[in-house]
Amino acid sequence: MTKIKIGLFGFGVVGQGIYEVVRKSKNAHAEIVKICVRDPKKPRKIEVDPSLFTTSVDDILDNQNINLVVEVIDDADAAYNIVKRAMLRGIPVVSGSKTMLAKHLPELIEIQKTRNVALLYDASSCGSIPVIRNLEEYYDNDLLLEVKGILNGSSNYILSRVFDHKDSYANALAQAQALGFAESDPSFDIEGYDSLFKLVIITVHALGTYVAPERIFTYGISTIHDSDIQYAREKNVKIKLVAQVVKVSDEHFTMFVMPEFVTPAKYIYSVDDEYNGVVIRGECYDRQFMFGKGAGSLPTASSILSDIMARLNNYRYEYKKMNYIEKPDYTTDITLKIYARYKETDVQGILNFSKIHEQFISEESNYVIGEIPLRELLEKRSQLSGRDVFLANIPIFFLNRD
Amino acid sequence: MTKIKIGLFGFGVVGQGIYEVVRKSKNAHAEIVKICVRDPKKPRKIEVDPSLFTTSVDDILDNQNINLVVEVIDDADAAYNIVKRAMLRGIPVVSGSKTMLAKHLPELIEIQKTRNVALLYDASSCGSIPVIRNLEEYYDNDLLLEVKGILNGSSNYILSRVFDHKDSYANALAQAQALGFAESDPSFDIEGYDSLFKLVIITVHALGTYVAPERIFTYGISTIHDSDIQYAREKNVKIKLVAQVVKVSDEHFTMFVMPEFVTPAKYIYSVDDEYNGVVIRGECYDRQFMFGKGAGSLPTASSILSDIMARLNNYRYEYKKMNYIEKPDYTTDITLKIYARYKETDVQGILNFSKIHEQFISEESNYVIGEIPLRELLEKRSQLSGRDVFLANIPIFFLNRD
Repeated sequence: MTKIKIGLFGFGVVGQGIYEVVRKSKNAHAEIVKICVRDPKKPRKIEVDPSLFTTSVDDILDNQNINLVVEVIDDADAAYNIVKRAMLRGIPVVSGSKTMLAKHLPELIEIQKTRNVALLYDASSCGSIPVIRNLEEYYDNDLLLEVKGILNGSSNYILSRVFDHKDSYANALAQAQALGFAESDPSFDIEGYDSLFKLVIITVHALGTYVAPERIFTYGISTIHDSDIQYAREKNVKIKLVAQVVKVSDEHFTMFVMPEFVTPAKYIYSVDDEYNGVVIRGECYDRQFMFGKGAGSLPTASSILSDIMARLNNYRYEYKKMNYIEKPDYTTDITLKIYARYKETDVQGILNFSKIHEQFISEESNYVIGEIPLRELLEKRSQLSGRDVFLANIPIFFLNRD
Repeated sequence: MTKIKIGLFGFGVVGQGIYEVVRKSKNAHAEIVKICVRDPKKPRKIEVDPSLFTTSVDDILDNQNINLVVEVIDDADAAYNIVKRAMLRGIPVVSGSKTMLAKHLPELIEIQKTRNVALLYDASSCGSIPVIRNLEEYYDNDLLLEVKGILNGSSNYILSRVFDHKDSYANALAQAQALGFAESDPSFDIEGYDSLFKLVIITVHALGTYVAPERIFTYGISTIHDSDIQYAREKNVKIKLVAQVVKVSDEHFTMFVMPEFVTPAKYIYSVDDEYNGVVIRGECYDRQFMFGKGAGSLPTASSILSDIMARLNNYRYEYKKMNYIEKPDYTTDITLKIYARYKETDVQGILNFSKIHEQFISEESNYVIGEIPLRELLEKRSQLSGRDVFLANIPIFFLNRD
């Protein structure tokens, strides 16, 4: 058993959490040898021997002592460069950068194969909930039908405040930022991109297929109004920001991120505050529910620790499902039933509903409930940007869904 | 990638589920080559080529084609003999026999090491919930503090019927048996032995220590009365049969199985019917909750399938925590607060409470609430057998427990 000598990139909340957790874990046989940061002099909560810091990437990549790079920096492009360079030199990497991974996974998977080097990233999706590892190792069979969940703690915290504590949206957002749940750019959380990037990564391990983020319909919660909340309360449902990948037939699967009306019978109904919850559904085992802290310094660091320790046994992802005999193809050719609330925007002029179920017009706000192809939503997505339109999925078309 | 050729022992509900699941899974690259049963002529729900059946253990163990033994028989002694013989011949084994495993794990772990042969048994604990695998691979670090859960679907189903549907205990038990949740000997479920054996296995992977079942205090639900249910309802708690292993200090851990008063704030409060739920608590990641179907033909078979496919990559448990630097020791030297309801039995004459909090005496039934060392409960366990005494844990002594 070799000792793991870590070169750490990034020393923000997660990086500092890793430092603490590694120090606590005698059995990890791990040590942080160097920490690469932009500004070593920046005041930090944790006391660290200043000689550990460097501002030079090469100080870590050229260090023959270091046998693992752990990368938890906020800048996706910088992360990509570091991770790729490390891997090309044959240094295994543990990364928490979902944006970077969601954009570059195909290339990084290829490098893993051609250079025979590991890249682990369980912390990138749902923090301390071991979703990737379980999809890769345990649900690695033909039975898997669906992965659906609340993948973003920040937007879920906001929706919980608004629903359970009758806070205003603006207040709730400010509070999420104050508590450190929200990313540095809050639009990342509330517009659904954080969930989207996690869903892209999850889908690679759930069904063996990479789908580029821009091909996936994503709608966030920033346009939510009191009237939406009131509507949901009257119907006894909660509004949750839900990401899902679902097999719709033996040949096809679909995926999207959008607010959803969630009934009390669903597992994710009770996933509140900053928590994440993931439902894994399959033939034979039905629904498995995994629940825990999806973000934050120490929960994310504990997940990084699991990846670090996995390297003690030379663990790497095999991307088993990419080699499956018959993989389903991605489709947006399915029909959803949605709620679309608007004020000024001519929603029915933009979105071509295939069927209208309900229409409501008032001085305050208007809504329409109808059926619409997912393809249509994806195509018209850009026309809805910046508009006073809130959309929510009303799940009825796939039977028995959580 | 070699094809997995399976010799299957047992063709009851689980065995037949495995047959179905393996047939469904093209990507398992697995085939059932022989099925060893006691009576090939017994009528079964599934049509199977009769030439697959054999009554001879050696027909499978001597078959050079077979590279995996899957054992799901009901008789623990027979299972032990088969599993041990297979392993001694170097044939890897997947087993679902918790009783056998809980009794013989130390010897079977030794054989795995000396003969360099795999024994996988994720299905033995909580069916389709991947508890063992996650403890072994993901929560394999110093942070783990506690594993606590509802591990037996049958007793949980009975308690749910009694609590949520106001069924009588006798009715609920009969229904559990009719639905096939209960083991062939129902006392195994309702006296807590099923949970106990699972807890023994879980503890090996959670903290790296094997504790023999007879050293662990176990109390079931068979003595529950209407007055207990009424008491719990008045206090707004549910009674659940809970198994737990808890680190009580850096040096010690404790474990026991007994009914518990569970408040609505706890994750396991909403684990109803035949479901299982497990809370994994650790430093940094706090509480992770895993929830799913813990028993039944297909859920168990899907878990067996995960173990079968793990063999495609030559996966085996490393029992990492057994090699930990400082492992905590098992202790019963902790104090619990319990509720003890009785009718005729002189409970305070048998059990030496260290402190009495409440006492209630009536024509119908009596109870006492007090503090008692776990050691005392374990020592007096046999004196309570067959008595009209119901015990329930009132968790207060470990702070922040779920």
